[in-house]
Amino acid sequence: MPENTAKDVNYSDSPDRVTRTLVLNSGNPESKRQELLDYFQQTFDQYETLFETLACEEAWYEKAIPLRHPLIFYFGHTAAFFINKLVTAKLIVERVDPDIEAIVAIGVDEMSWDDLDDSHYQWPSVDAMKDYRRKVRALVSDFIETMPLDIPITWESQAWIIMMGIEHERIHLETSSVLIRQLPLSYVKVHPYWEPCRETGDAPENRLVAIPGRHMRLGKAYDDALYGWDNEYGCYEVEVPAFSASEYLVSNAEYKQFMDAGGYDNERWWTDEGWAWATFSETRHPEFWVLEGGSYRYRTMLEEIAMPWNWPVDVNCHEAQAFCQWKSEVTGRQIQLPSEAEWYCLREAIDTDQPRWDKAPGNINLEYWASACPVDEFRTGELCDVIGNVWQWTTTPIDGFDGFRVHPCYDDFSTPTFDGRHNLIKGGCWISTGNYAIRDSRYAFRRHFFQHAGFRYVESTAVENTSANPYETDALVAQYLAFHYGETFFDVPNYPVACAQICRDVSQESPRTRALDLGCSVGRTSFELARWFQHVDGIDFSARFISAAAELQQRGKIRYFVPTEGELGDYCVADLAELGLDDIDVNRIRFTQGDACNLKPIYDNYDLVFAGNLIDRLNHPAQFLGMIHERIRPGGLLVLTSPYTWLEDYTPRDKWLGGIRENGEVLDTYTGLHRLLGTHFEEVQPPADVPFVIRETARKFQHTLAQCTVWRRKV
Amino acid sequence: MPENTAKDVNYSDSPDRVTRTLVLNSGNPESKRQELLDYFQQTFDQYETLFETLACEEAWYEKAIPLRHPLIFYFGHTAAFFINKLVTAKLIVERVDPDIEAIVAIGVDEMSWDDLDDSHYQWPSVDAMKDYRRKVRALVSDFIETMPLDIPITWESQAWIIMMGIEHERIHLETSSVLIRQLPLSYVKVHPYWEPCRETGDAPENRLVAIPGRHMRLGKAYDDALYGWDNEYGCYEVEVPAFSASEYLVSNAEYKQFMDAGGYDNERWWTDEGWAWATFSETRHPEFWVLEGGSYRYRTMLEEIAMPWNWPVDVNCHEAQAFCQWKSEVTGRQIQLPSEAEWYCLREAIDTDQPRWDKAPGNINLEYWASACPVDEFRTGELCDVIGNVWQWTTTPIDGFDGFRVHPCYDDFSTPTFDGRHNLIKGGCWISTGNYAIRDSRYAFRRHFFQHAGFRYVESTAVENTSANPYETDALVAQYLAFHYGETFFDVPNYPVACAQICRDVSQESPRTRALDLGCSVGRTSFELARWFQHVDGIDFSARFISAAAELQQRGKIRYFVPTEGELGDYCVADLAELGLDDIDVNRIRFTQGDACNLKPIYDNYDLVFAGNLIDRLNHPAQFLGMIHERIRPGGLLVLTSPYTWLEDYTPRDKWLGGIRENGEVLDTYTGLHRLLGTHFEEVQPPADVPFVIRETARKFQHTLAQCTVWRRKV
Repeated sequence: MPENTAKDVNYSDSPDRVTRTLVLNSGNPESKRQELLDYFQQTFDQYETLFETLACEEAWYEKAIPLRHPLIFYFGHTAAFFINKLVTAKLIVERVDPDIEAIVAIGVDEMSWDDLDDSHYQWPSVDAMKDYRRKVRALVSDFIETMPLDIPITWESQAWIIMMGIEHERIHLETSSVLIRQLPLSYVKVHPYWEPCRETGDAPENRLVAIPGRHMRLGKAYDDALYGWDNEYGCYEVEVPAFSASEYLVSNAEYKQFMDAGGYDNERWWTDEGWAWATFSETRHPEFWVLEGGSYRYRTMLEEIAMPWNWPVDVNCHEAQAFCQWKSEVTGRQIQLPSEAEWYCLREAIDTDQPRWDKAPGNINLEYWASACPVDEFRTGELCDVIGNVWQWTTTPIDGFDGFRVHPCYDDFSTPTFDGRHNLIKGGCWISTGNYAIRDSRYAFRRHFFQHAGFRYVESTAVENTSANPYETDALVAQYLAFHYGETFFDVPNYPVACAQICRDVSQESPRTRALDLGCSVGRTSFELARWFQHVDGIDFSARFISAAAELQQRGKIRYFVPTEGELGDYCVADLAELGLDDIDVNRIRFTQGDACNLKPIYDNYDLVFAGNLIDRLNHPAQFLGMIHERIRPGGLLVLTSPYTWLEDYTPRDKWLGGIRENGEVLDTYTGLHRLLGTHFEEVQPPADVPFVIRETARKFQHTLAQCTVWRRKV
Repeated sequence: MPENTAKDVNYSDSPDRVTRTLVLNSGNPESKRQELLDYFQQTFDQYETLFETLACEEAWYEKAIPLRHPLIFYFGHTAAFFINKLVTAKLIVERVDPDIEAIVAIGVDEMSWDDLDDSHYQWPSVDAMKDYRRKVRALVSDFIETMPLDIPITWESQAWIIMMGIEHERIHLETSSVLIRQLPLSYVKVHPYWEPCRETGDAPENRLVAIPGRHMRLGKAYDDALYGWDNEYGCYEVEVPAFSASEYLVSNAEYKQFMDAGGYDNERWWTDEGWAWATFSETRHPEFWVLEGGSYRYRTMLEEIAMPWNWPVDVNCHEAQAFCQWKSEVTGRQIQLPSEAEWYCLREAIDTDQPRWDKAPGNINLEYWASACPVDEFRTGELCDVIGNVWQWTTTPIDGFDGFRVHPCYDDFSTPTFDGRHNLIKGGCWISTGNYAIRDSRYAFRRHFFQHAGFRYVESTAVENTSANPYETDALVAQYLAFHYGETFFDVPNYPVACAQICRDVSQESPRTRALDLGCSVGRTSFELARWFQHVDGIDFSARFISAAAELQQRGKIRYFVPTEGELGDYCVADLAELGLDDIDVNRIRFTQGDACNLKPIYDNYDLVFAGNLIDRLNHPAQFLGMIHERIRPGGLLVLTSPYTWLEDYTPRDKWLGGIRENGEVLDTYTGLHRLLGTHFEEVQPPADVPFVIRETARKFQHTLAQCTVWRRKV
């Protein structure tokens, strides 16, 4: 460990550089209130100190990069966030400055690299924003001093909203430092509080260190001692096979080998997405390298310095992955980025966490420098920089753990990033503080995005599921996912389950080899039928619905968004395990897109065919009913449910099975069914009503009574 | 009474000419079964005998008048009717001949006089149809012999379906006789069974006879002894003031005076509708008068005879009304057709009815001749032809009595005629048998239509409400009528009533001078508010909805048709009396079309404004909420209910009060309401959920939870 660290320097009138996120579940309320007040003030102070590095007016108002707001926005944003969340949580009524709070509410973060932000803003003056921050500081301090406070502090506590505001500002302390690092040098000035490391030298030779495999359990409990964002909670268990990890983070020197090998010229080492970015952006070297007279210098936050070859390289995920691909080629080994779980295997070597350590076991939490440092400065066992220095890209797209739920006051913190396009970074960097600096923090960025982030590589055969797993937002599919897998209402039992139970009851005395769920929608009845039938075919005309059913079958869960009021909604998950469907063999089910009126020949010899809410959605229901006996073995069953909602949108009027006058006489659908099915079937039991409820919004529902009829194919 | 009547003639092999409709509530089941079988056989026989008057093939296949089918249709139709109804009632499964039953199912009856029926039909041969009738006769006879039969026979009895078939055939016995009377003479032949009256002479001079006024109660009970069609049941009470009635039906001679006065040339005696018919049809004399060599002869059913001047004239309602208008002009008295109630005043003079009389007290029930007879042949007290001879047109458009409901096996017998365009005929004619011949029978035809019908005139000031009162078939209006006035479902209380009760509860301590029901739809809450508020304004943007509310206010009831399955539906009535709203003063309510966002100045100074399910249907709800305090007295109340179903169809997204993200933060509508109303109102009580259910079909419902908020205008 270095002897002389920033921690030892005392700047008068400067906020303490080292902070600790709050321990929420111990201590007495009044001392905790003081701790919270101190943490808030320190955070506000430290954030303002960062902006003291701006050298001129332009530095506040010009964008560091096109896709983000200028720094004046971020200066106000973290303060307004407190007010916006306190209003949302209905803890305060009056705003401090509605205009400022509106203009600095929404960041232009993180979009696609080829988007352009063409919005025009009228930014307030720096003095106005400073004044605004003063008012907010007073209001929040007062709020902290007077709010009710119990231990533990939980999601429901008023103090949670304050912690949310503080930890949000700690995020922006870091992301603003990245923007400042991206400003022209002329816009920034050195500052004693933000003193970088001065130690540079040759990079050590990297090597792979063997890491034993182990069972990992990720995710924290909702009563964890430390503040967390929604995505940190829940549970994910995984077996991690043995792998090897590079001893050091990849240094500028090691990365230079990749460049010298033509790293930016060889498409074969890049992913398609990475190559598209590299060519679009015309990138030739890492973001914070500066080409000057044929050689590279290095940009710290506030200075350009000679290239520190033994410091970690800052790259985005695409560059890191291309490096690994090159490294695989030259070593003949499978070199890649670690998964999130593999990183946690490394993290096991450190047995402490930010609020509890005396001194950080890495270049993190601003405990040493306002920059990276040599990659061999902080060692834990055989590895260096397990945490800190720069973030470490992983191969893992962020996703919620089992049990994930959003916080009601910040429901869009994580959910938009569960799209397969945001990879996790782990370990924190030199300016990671608060929640950013703890073991359980989980942040993810688009793969083209720059933070103070680099990477460690591993030799591993682990393959991360990188396909997208976003919230299903197709409104109709989401509505049906909720209908099949979600809450029930008005004491009406789950309809697909009730239908499956009818199929079970009527088939009790029969073989249960093959069942067909025709018009299976998003598949719940098929899953339920697989409890009793050896093989279940689920067929729906809609590829969108079948995709959802198949995703659930493959992944065991699917997420969806259902509207509650206007454009607002709930983030939900259908989880086979939570639904008691984890004990069935999902391989018994085959979901396929298909047309009930034109079934392929392979769909035959069924013991039972269930057609739920199907017949009144067919173009030619009589044709379907006229041929379905061919698909059922003699003695097999046909179970129909329908509310007989005949609509010309689906079925031409002359094809309605009932609900019409025929030669002047009333013909109801039940009678029409008898007429069509009588030749090949006999009705097994009296028709019965089966109710169902489909939620449209939090307050509006379709409440329907289907009629269920059961038919046995004549022998 | 005449000495020598057809009754005394005995034709061998001919069915008894005199029949009696069944008494349903006395006798023992087995003798009743035999009576029913006899009545069925007689009816079938007599009907077939009528067709023996057709002289040639063309007579069966050429249309007597363009708007009706040829007689071959009617020959099969009454038989097929039995089968169609037995199948509809699910009392038999197998049809006798599906092709015939389809082709003779629907008559082309009774359309507008300028319609044309261009359908092409492939009619069966007469022999095929006779064979078909034989099979039906055997099936129905067998059915009668084996069906369950209890006394009394009710709407639910299987025997009711048989009575329906018999009485239906008796209707067609008469209407077919009219068609035969309209055939060319060469197509028909005289027949001993169908012997006309031969007695003619000079017409007696008509005069007016004073009839005392009385309280009349029309309509029969559902347990009445005689078969009836749906429109005969229920109750209608009316005070009939004293009036005078012509002693005789208007004879051919008396009608000739009108013609000689230029009856068919003077538009001023005709209604607009009547004149349009007369000019379109180029009518110059009554339908069954034949102009030959400058003088008139007269067409009976099967012959042309010298004009029987003392027989009643056959005319349609337009001609009868024109005659009365002329008569008024020449007498200076208010001469008009009788109303239905006035006819019943005359009918009081006869104390018997068809099943119970020994001998008909009029030329009716085929008890005398197969034609009309002199207008002075049958006297009852001071009047002749109170019943029989020819039907008597009335001024009364047919309508259901209070308590009207359709028979489930024949729901379109009457309902299509409740349109203000079908006038009742009363009293029956020479060939009226069965239900046609009883006191309570009620048949109505379009005013241009010909039956064996003429008229008696009265001097009366009675004015019949002739405006249309059909079933509301505007689907959305009907759906809301059912929502406001119809059945409840899922144990959810009536919503407009629940809302009114909330208004009552919150206004208990306040004056209740003026209330405003804004977005009143079809008005239920307005009616309910009138229980407690001295004046209620009901305003809706939709003129269709307001019209329905106003009709209910004016008439005390309104009919509507709501779908059950496909195009089938229920015929319903909203009746203020049945809803317990007959004790409120409906004059307290003023229904007006208007725009909640642009209210006229007169709508002000309210003690209470109720806006139910309104705000999320406004184009600019904030504008409405920003001004509504101006219409409420200080201290007055604003009651809002809404499910907050924001849709861009109604409200542009930037005008939604909530259900949005505002500067990234969730804004729900309840919060939005507080923001808008906070200046002028204080919230009186916590928000509450009020559920409602709107039926879409028999099986499909919208089930919604509105939120109710109550606000008091600051003083």
